[in-house]
Amino acid sequence: MVTLSKSRIEALSDGVFAIAMTLLVLKLEVPEHQHSNEEMLRQLLDLRPQFMAYVITFLIAGGFWFLHHLTFHFIRNVTAFLVWVNLLFLMFVSLLPFSAGLMGHLFMHPVSQFFYFGNQLAIALLLNLHWQYARRKNLIVDTEASEADHLSLRVGMTAAVFAVCMVTALLAPEYSWAPLWLLVIGFIIERVRRQRR
Amino acid sequence: MVTLSKSRIEALSDGVFAIAMTLLVLKLEVPEHQHSNEEMLRQLLDLRPQFMAYVITFLIAGGFWFLHHLTFHFIRNVTAFLVWVNLLFLMFVSLLPFSAGLMGHLFMHPVSQFFYFGNQLAIALLLNLHWQYARRKNLIVDTEASEADHLSLRVGMTAAVFAVCMVTALLAPEYSWAPLWLLVIGFIIERVRRQRR
Amino acid sequence: MVTLSKSRIEALSDGVFAIAMTLLVLKLEVPEHQHSNEEMLRQLLDLRPQFMAYVITFLIAGGFWFLHHLTFHFIRNVTAFLVWVNLLFLMFVSLLPFSAGLMGHLFMHPVSQFFYFGNQLAIALLLNLHWQYARRKNLIVDTEASEADHLSLRVGMTAAVFAVCMVTALLAPEYSWAPLWLLVIGFIIERVRRQRR
Amino acid sequence: MVTLSKSRIEALSDGVFAIAMTLLVLKLEVPEHQHSNEEMLRQLLDLRPQFMAYVITFLIAGGFWFLHHLTFHFIRNVTAFLVWVNLLFLMFVSLLPFSAGLMGHLFMHPVSQFFYFGNQLAIALLLNLHWQYARRKNLIVDTEASEADHLSLRVGMTAAVFAVCMVTALLAPEYSWAPLWLLVIGFIIERVRRQRR
Repeated sequence: MVTLSKSRIEALSDGVFAIAMTLLVLKLEVPEHQHSNEEMLRQLLDLRPQFMAYVITFLIAGGFWFLHHLTFHFIRNVTAFLVWVNLLFLMFVSLLPFSAGLMGHLFMHPVSQFFYFGNQLAIALLLNLHWQYARRKNLIVDTEASEADHLSLRVGMTAAVFAVCMVTALLAPEYSWAPLWLLVIGFIIERVRRQRR
Repeated sequence: MVTLSKSRIEALSDGVFAIAMTLLVLKLEVPEHQHSNEEMLRQLLDLRPQFMAYVITFLIAGGFWFLHHLTFHFIRNVTAFLVWVNLLFLMFVSLLPFSAGLMGHLFMHPVSQFFYFGNQLAIALLLNLHWQYARRKNLIVDTEASEADHLSLRVGMTAAVFAVCMVTALLAPEYSWAPLWLLVIGFIIERVRRQRR
Repeated sequence: MVTLSKSRIEALSDGVFAIAMTLLVLKLEVPEHQHSNEEMLRQLLDLRPQFMAYVITFLIAGGFWFLHHLTFHFIRNVTAFLVWVNLLFLMFVSLLPFSAGLMGHLFMHPVSQFFYFGNQLAIALLLNLHWQYARRKNLIVDTEASEADHLSLRVGMTAAVFAVCMVTALLAPEYSWAPLWLLVIGFIIERVRRQRR
Repeated sequence: MVTLSKSRIEALSDGVFAIAMTLLVLKLEVPEHQHSNEEMLRQLLDLRPQFMAYVITFLIAGGFWFLHHLTFHFIRNVTAFLVWVNLLFLMFVSLLPFSAGLMGHLFMHPVSQFFYFGNQLAIALLLNLHWQYARRKNLIVDTEASEADHLSLRVGMTAAVFAVCMVTALLAPEYSWAPLWLLVIGFIIERVRRQRR
């Protein structure tokens, strides 16, 4: 089996993340230029749902990028299967500008929320597959098991939260964003616990 | 002759692939926002051909990126001629969003299929030229000949399959995608054989 | 605490900067093709405000990239907090094509100027937070304190100048660009003083 | 003076080149989907000027990327001045999709040709400034003077050819592309001479 270095899959990933995150801005349409100052202000305020979709999606994507970064911090080298899992992962990452556009226009539709959180869940599940496969196949560097376990927990929890978001989008679409706070709270608890140690 | 390091042509290639693959998403137009939930769902379902073109093109591009990655795994350094072959290769890679857009809108037209598979064939032929030239000119690292032969076979088969797709697009456009399964089947057979060894 | 290498956050940053800076060009709309040579020339001349917004925004973004580059020249490794500060920083960098589009269409509106300089100020403040945090937490390499102090001054001055631009945009929108000359003059004074030493 | 490593300016440059070259494809508009096979073919054939502008601009940009690559092959480290020259250089590179769009729509207008070749000339002149400054300030590695002289000649000739194109665009717009053949012929002569040595 050809042993592949991880640097180029990292480079492709950084590229796809950087582009997908930056293309989000194209979903923010610049208002027309005939308007007075007051109309202008009103038009910008009307873009609030799109701005919210931009900020939330950018930060979620940033979080996935960070988790992906952390997994590769431990991964020593890659196999063909791992490359293909990563390509599928990147395929859903690069779908984010579409999903964010759907969400920005259609905030309260169950269908667009379901699609949006489905996209995030697909990313999270493929990240879990990528990480669990790398651990099973012993592709990671020697490290304290607790560190790797901890990362497994974070990657797994992320998928769980997006699954909860999807269900909420169907049952109570007005609260579908609420489960995301679990990620933020979990992150804060974790930091506090780590600093005490 | 100035001996050039391969790192920057790799960086440019990773960039072009990442962008071309991510721009594919811009061909998926976000539905208008006046619609009800049911209309919304219907509009998303109407996008199926575009989604299919997105997924297939992303995976083919990912496959080409992987083969390109594998060739550079063996290549030690580059010459001016090899840089120009790579630039032509990247020119056809960056044409993919156009070809995918053509295919997404016009799935069953022989003309758009011919153009689409022609684009893929051009990429495959330039990849063959790149790899064969590197082998002939002895630009690759010492390696078992069987590994390099194996890669030659894969790169050559890819071109052959896309040539068959092009012919099929003219004669029987409704089956033009079928030859792609040869690549998937070939890939699976190869994995099984390798694992037995 | 997992010690993270800085190379991937640098790669993501270079990607986001490169894309945000290049997407600025999409705000320059190519004139329609029915026009005569004279009309063509007139249409290009009509794009002057957009060209000005393009050039100024590209150079400001280039300046931020350079300062970011300089901070990472001193930073040894990164923490999770620093990664998140950088992701927020990049979120505002990737908003630049929107702000530049606003400015190009609506040069003299206080609202669009306020938004534009607010975007730049947010980038500058997050760059300050990034740099001050890295210094406090001792994440930087051993270096002469004067070099780091000098960079602190430059990063701080940049934020101050954009804050002045924002206030000017509200009080006297026709002069809101003037404070930017302070950056250029400060840069020239600094070069002259350094060369004398 | 802080000595800066060249790797990040190379990364930013590779990113900007990759994006500018890939964005060229967005100027190729995918035909509408109501058309029959014959109309489809006709519409694709109508895009010939845009395809030509795409191919030529991609190859010119690739050539500039290659020359830029070669200069950095010799450059050891960079100064603040050199970074700013490179940022201006990249500003004109990222303007290429606009210029190519202008050319694709309006092939025979002196105004659009003048703008297009002016963009290329600006890139070439900044590349000369970058290289000459690096040589004068002794920022390049020890190398045979003949190699550096040879690169100076190539960079200088490129600027000269685009200046001739600009003049031709004003006097005889139908022949403005002709001087580009000088670059191709020069390249071939050079290769033959080098292989004889």
